[in-house]
Amino acid sequence: MRKIVDLNCDMGEGFGHWSYGDAPDEALMEVISSANVATGFHAGDPNSMNRVAALAKAHGVGLGAHPAYKDLQGFGRRRIDAAPDELVNDVLYQIGALREFGRRHGISLQHVKPHGALYMEAARNEDLSRHLVETLQQMSPDLILFCMGASKTYEVAKRLSHPVVREFYSDRDYADDGMIVFTRKPTTLDPEAIARKCLRACQDGTVETTSGKSIDVAFESICVHSDTPGAVDILRAIRSILSENDITIAPASDVLAQGSTD
Amino acid sequence: MRKIVDLNCDMGEGFGHWSYGDAPDEALMEVISSANVATGFHAGDPNSMNRVAALAKAHGVGLGAHPAYKDLQGFGRRRIDAAPDELVNDVLYQIGALREFGRRHGISLQHVKPHGALYMEAARNEDLSRHLVETLQQMSPDLILFCMGASKTYEVAKRLSHPVVREFYSDRDYADDGMIVFTRKPTTLDPEAIARKCLRACQDGTVETTSGKSIDVAFESICVHSDTPGAVDILRAIRSILSENDITIAPASDVLAQGSTD
Amino acid sequence: MRKIVDLNCDMGEGFGHWSYGDAPDEALMEVISSANVATGFHAGDPNSMNRVAALAKAHGVGLGAHPAYKDLQGFGRRRIDAAPDELVNDVLYQIGALREFGRRHGISLQHVKPHGALYMEAARNEDLSRHLVETLQQMSPDLILFCMGASKTYEVAKRLSHPVVREFYSDRDYADDGMIVFTRKPTTLDPEAIARKCLRACQDGTVETTSGKSIDVAFESICVHSDTPGAVDILRAIRSILSENDITIAPASDVLAQGSTD
Amino acid sequence: MRKIVDLNCDMGEGFGHWSYGDAPDEALMEVISSANVATGFHAGDPNSMNRVAALAKAHGVGLGAHPAYKDLQGFGRRRIDAAPDELVNDVLYQIGALREFGRRHGISLQHVKPHGALYMEAARNEDLSRHLVETLQQMSPDLILFCMGASKTYEVAKRLSHPVVREFYSDRDYADDGMIVFTRKPTTLDPEAIARKCLRACQDGTVETTSGKSIDVAFESICVHSDTPGAVDILRAIRSILSENDITIAPASDVLAQGSTD
Repeated sequence: MRKIVDLNCDMGEGFGHWSYGDAPDEALMEVISSANVATGFHAGDPNSMNRVAALAKAHGVGLGAHPAYKDLQGFGRRRIDAAPDELVNDVLYQIGALREFGRRHGISLQHVKPHGALYMEAARNEDLSRHLVETLQQMSPDLILFCMGASKTYEVAKRLSHPVVREFYSDRDYADDGMIVFTRKPTTLDPEAIARKCLRACQDGTVETTSGKSIDVAFESICVHSDTPGAVDILRAIRSILSENDITIAPASDVLAQGSTD
Repeated sequence: MRKIVDLNCDMGEGFGHWSYGDAPDEALMEVISSANVATGFHAGDPNSMNRVAALAKAHGVGLGAHPAYKDLQGFGRRRIDAAPDELVNDVLYQIGALREFGRRHGISLQHVKPHGALYMEAARNEDLSRHLVETLQQMSPDLILFCMGASKTYEVAKRLSHPVVREFYSDRDYADDGMIVFTRKPTTLDPEAIARKCLRACQDGTVETTSGKSIDVAFESICVHSDTPGAVDILRAIRSILSENDITIAPASDVLAQGSTD
Repeated sequence: MRKIVDLNCDMGEGFGHWSYGDAPDEALMEVISSANVATGFHAGDPNSMNRVAALAKAHGVGLGAHPAYKDLQGFGRRRIDAAPDELVNDVLYQIGALREFGRRHGISLQHVKPHGALYMEAARNEDLSRHLVETLQQMSPDLILFCMGASKTYEVAKRLSHPVVREFYSDRDYADDGMIVFTRKPTTLDPEAIARKCLRACQDGTVETTSGKSIDVAFESICVHSDTPGAVDILRAIRSILSENDITIAPASDVLAQGSTD
Repeated sequence: MRKIVDLNCDMGEGFGHWSYGDAPDEALMEVISSANVATGFHAGDPNSMNRVAALAKAHGVGLGAHPAYKDLQGFGRRRIDAAPDELVNDVLYQIGALREFGRRHGISLQHVKPHGALYMEAARNEDLSRHLVETLQQMSPDLILFCMGASKTYEVAKRLSHPVVREFYSDRDYADDGMIVFTRKPTTLDPEAIARKCLRACQDGTVETTSGKSIDVAFESICVHSDTPGAVDILRAIRSILSENDITIAPASDVLAQGSTD
């Protein structure tokens, strides 16, 4: 049973004059413990990165880079057929850019979570995951990598002993094989139901699938998507139910420092 | 009289499959002491930045960011009417991205030199220069700023005691007012003549203008543009003549450490 | 007194997954007579252009290109210091792209209205306006150019007898010199008040300035900004009051065909 | 046996200040009959498109759009996982942009040839090819589509009776299955050898594969890549040998007008 868990959300996913999702960054920052900040390739720009890094510092939230394929039009949701070393260079570029805004506001980078299609590609592609983990380990041995539990990324990071955090997708449905059922219209958006789902995952390490089965889930961080309608209410409900059950919400680095349940 | 001087060149100004200038980066690295690396906004991409940072480390060359307006098509030579705080965010983004590749290859960032129209805009625009210098001073008090001697950038940096390096433009003509005569076809491209011009500038602190007058120049770094035809030969001639006259060529940080002539 | 007037609005100003303004394109299309469609440089993408062109056809709305500086991050609101022939090439590129979607949906291009900073630059810059008008006249002598009444664009177009339409800015305040008072927070957003302002402009050819003075205005099209809060209600109120006063709302080409008041 | 054949080359594949390949566009234009013009997504910009369209008109060369995935950094050589309708919109956008420059210079668009990874994707992906051909047929029934002979694109275009041209790749090696052996270092760059290979393909309809076998090839246009070293010399040698053997080189539209060999 988890006694401490991270609560992460994507942030700063507008671009220039465009904003994304209904939840204001300020409101999200108050209820999460780790922020994945868009770094300009799929969303985000230097101004939003500067603003969100300052917010993360102000709220004691773990600062994370959310690098993506270079695809503003597709919001990083379209796979680009690029070589692993090119992609690792893209990721480093984006990590460095955000780290600089962290430096400006006195907050060091806690983690990196690839975005969208790049996250999924790394999950499947062991070669890409290995390139990425080896590079991070050489350069930034403390920079936590976020990933799916059932992924090459997790396997490689564990094998190479690089700090890694698995996510529980609070606002997505699970299939019997543990995979996420990708739908743009999540079936359950009731904050209380999502909160109870998170509590069960923390306490029992299980989640109910779309077929009604119960399967095991292991994770260190709960993810709520910032563009899920009612994201702030959902996050508040999760905070509330976990707190009532003596489960601490803390940045991923604190969660790892206390040891994984796995 | 200068006994030590830096020799800088722009590097990595291709993009994707395109290259720029005839001089190979490797050949340039052997003859310069500081490199200004394109950081993706006017030229350069994560792959070129990674490659050039590794080269700088291998050759003991000072690594510098060469941030620009976001204008790939115009090669950063077109002014964009943006607010100083936006531009400073753009600069930080680019600095951070290059710093990360420096971190990968074990070389810290020595300097920043704005590129093209941004360099000229900062020279004229005191508000922009002040935003930039104040930000660098708060975040990176040792990060040297490259600029023109006759510029608001230099005035502000000196006033705020931020480390600053003035450039001598070896392959450009000077007007009587000390300004560069902007021409895409430099009149003098004879390496020996350029080398003598640099020697005189170091020894006497003067340069001959297009009208034949002699004017004072003060500087800590000699700039050779990588796209000047015969750039490598010019750099070799400069190295040779300075060496024969006991003038040391060293990265800008070493030059500043030994004290400015000013 | 105007008996027929065009009613125009910017459209399709999202990008990829981002949308802009609260008013749905469909709702706007029902109440306007000319649409200025973002063409990918400041906003808009091939998918939005395709969708909006189909909507314009379906609603009998005049289809117009809304070309801009290449500046997604700045939404085309930042002047870029480019040569007139480069800018004309940028404009042609964008016009052609939209014309192709018009061709797909069986609707020919009615007009072009430069966006944001490019609209303002053309207004001030006679050289740019002349390059643009001469090029349009050679290639597309029937393609109507939208502009401010007090502009070099208008002067040049009239002198060269190119079809031109002046705009009345219904949701902006006028200064005594006839210029728009640029404010991001328009003082008057009451649909009825804006409608009365439009009626007076049509009937009397005057508008009340911020100082309370009455000045002359001459125009062939009324502009409502799609990002003005309540844009659809404002457009409906304008339609209603003009209709009650026997003023016809029709695409700009019909307005010009019936002769200008000027 | 072919008595008339088209000779095509990619053109305008620089971007902004970058150029690509050693062959000047002017020199290429003198020796080809159809030009595939980069349209800004993988290379090319409004200025190069304007320039190349004028050159095509001046030399009586067939003007073709060379649309690509939106991937400047990867030069359109990286597949992007996008839906067919999105890709068709991307293609239309690029076609329209080039058509406008053709309109400026009094030359209508002859053909469209998808570039790089998009060309290969269409070759394999029947759904994409069908979307593309159906759209072209509805909008531009005379716009010739260039493709590989062994491709879904060709099958679909023939089935739907849309004008289509197959290419013979003069500077690439063929495998026994008729596929191109992708290598960045073509084995045979001798202009005379390439010319003889083209003559044999025209006269006998065969080509020798890398294993020494002879296989059938059917085509209406010979492609020479502009970045192949010595492209102009190769094109001249091809012209010369075909002319000596009474085979006419003419734009693709003329070739199709005279009937296909197939």
